[in-house]
Amino acid sequence: MTTTATAPALDTPLVIDGLQCGPYDRDTFLQLRAGGVTCATATVAFWEDAIETMDALAAWNDLLAANSDLVMPARTAADVERAKEQDRTAILLGAQNASPLQGRLGFVRLFHDMGLRVMQLTYNNNTEFGGSCYEESDPGLTRFGREVVREMNAVGMLVDLSHSGERTRRDAIEHSALPVALTHANPRSLYDHPRNADDTTLKALAARDGVVGLATYRSICGHYARSLDDWCSMVARTVDLVGVRHVAIGTDLSPKAGAAEFTWMRKGRWTRGEQRGADLGTSPASGSDTNSGSGSGEWLADASGLAEVADRLVGFGFTPDEAHAVVGGNWLRLYAAVFEGGDGS
Amino acid sequence: MTTTATAPALDTPLVIDGLQCGPYDRDTFLQLRAGGVTCATATVAFWEDAIETMDALAAWNDLLAANSDLVMPARTAADVERAKEQDRTAILLGAQNASPLQGRLGFVRLFHDMGLRVMQLTYNNNTEFGGSCYEESDPGLTRFGREVVREMNAVGMLVDLSHSGERTRRDAIEHSALPVALTHANPRSLYDHPRNADDTTLKALAARDGVVGLATYRSICGHYARSLDDWCSMVARTVDLVGVRHVAIGTDLSPKAGAAEFTWMRKGRWTRGEQRGADLGTSPASGSDTNSGSGSGEWLADASGLAEVADRLVGFGFTPDEAHAVVGGNWLRLYAAVFEGGDGS
Repeated sequence: MTTTATAPALDTPLVIDGLQCGPYDRDTFLQLRAGGVTCATATVAFWEDAIETMDALAAWNDLLAANSDLVMPARTAADVERAKEQDRTAILLGAQNASPLQGRLGFVRLFHDMGLRVMQLTYNNNTEFGGSCYEESDPGLTRFGREVVREMNAVGMLVDLSHSGERTRRDAIEHSALPVALTHANPRSLYDHPRNADDTTLKALAARDGVVGLATYRSICGHYARSLDDWCSMVARTVDLVGVRHVAIGTDLSPKAGAAEFTWMRKGRWTRGEQRGADLGTSPASGSDTNSGSGSGEWLADASGLAEVADRLVGFGFTPDEAHAVVGGNWLRLYAAVFEGGDGS
Repeated sequence: MTTTATAPALDTPLVIDGLQCGPYDRDTFLQLRAGGVTCATATVAFWEDAIETMDALAAWNDLLAANSDLVMPARTAADVERAKEQDRTAILLGAQNASPLQGRLGFVRLFHDMGLRVMQLTYNNNTEFGGSCYEESDPGLTRFGREVVREMNAVGMLVDLSHSGERTRRDAIEHSALPVALTHANPRSLYDHPRNADDTTLKALAARDGVVGLATYRSICGHYARSLDDWCSMVARTVDLVGVRHVAIGTDLSPKAGAAEFTWMRKGRWTRGEQRGADLGTSPASGSDTNSGSGSGEWLADASGLAEVADRLVGFGFTPDEAHAVVGGNWLRLYAAVFEGGDGS
């Protein structure tokens, strides 16, 4: 990254949002278009089992078909590039938990067949695959978890460690034959939160050519959520930490989510107790509105706000090439490496 | 079909068996190779629900990978031709029931994604999609059944009516925009059995360019099961009835099936009563051995016996081209029309 303070406005960049939550409808797709977003990963499972995830995938097939003027399914990096050419948004489908596997290694390939391209090993709880960032003890990547990582490599599915514990993250980074991602997390050295990753983890991720998608979600941004400038300063600091090749966007946006969706994300079917997810009650942005809205800072009410990011990064001293890498190029490179690294259909 | 009584032996034909039951292991694959079988449709579901069918598909993925010197998965007609070039057997995956859908229209596309290319609307019981040949009353193709046929057309999955009732068969033949199949059934005018199809149905099937795979299963062959010559005479009579373009092989072989498999096929989880499947106790071949063995006449203990069929058909007066059509060419044409007729991945 250079330190030039001024630079010309960029050609329209290829923008990729590495993680969103939904729900989606035509309005959301129009917001993605307004934001110049060429690709977004949509969450199809938080706690859902195989059949529930298949219901979500089938609903996506219908939603994509009904809005094919705006969106298209993405299964390859080439699909993303085609979406850019066609001025549409490519939707990648991802799971924030490995619950769709329902305990079966062989289901990795089947869900890949059905279009799933990104999967976390854990969401907010320890699983048979590894540990979550919210548990008191993270046992690391389990034997089953190693099998799943190997299978994800084999078929070409991106391993996402955003909600995993630090030990599981490092184990998976080391164990994976292909680069992995934190699709939506921030450096813990910039904002101390269990969902964020420590510098050692982030450097190990980068050393294996992985990518961290920086989140705009208020609860894990702290003061970096206040404005686009603040958020860009977090990008700049993260680039200083791990290099511009390894930093991208993963907003965690959910502009259409309401109380029912947030309750499901936070409580699933595992507790009757109070759960506030990433909102630990300590964030400057936490408050009564955390159960609805985009989840992101006020500058990003929905994906349309992403249109400004690349230019603003140039204002922060990024070269145009560097800004392009951060807003989309790095994800595209990782997607190509992972999706084409497997033998899946 | 000409009536020449003698003809030269054929070049090695492309042989396709339109329906087998399994179970499979390396021995079965070696039998397929010995039979010169380039493609066989293997049954992955009789009564299985979505998860159970996915378990079967995952097991097939492993079995195919472990025996890739002998077999390969087939998802297109081109895959079948590639198998021929590589001297391997292409395995098409089919379901003898629509139970894998678990009541969901959208699962047609998902199972197509996972490799399923053939599906019956009903097995031995009436379903939400249509009527079975064994029920007292066949209500015909239901509204849901019409939706499923349309969806199968849309994705490129072959509609199989082998176990359906006559009314459902005719409804589906008429409703389907693409040709359909009876993958394993015989003309009822040649052997009167509820599993077999009447001439009107067979002619309607042929008029829409569909294909009937003639079964070697004793219980629905009667005296045509006694020898290869007898079975070839059934082929010749069926060709006289519907034309050589519409007749193929669908053995229903299950050389490795034992009592547990036959009990599952016949009783599933729907009855505690006695069920003998197609064996109505009236077949000349019925007897104590109907719960084990290939299920076919003694001339076809396993798929290796299929190596002789093409030459024998020439002995029955078929031209080499006609014999090639019956032993494989007709299925290949239908597979190409149906699989490429849809938009599925």
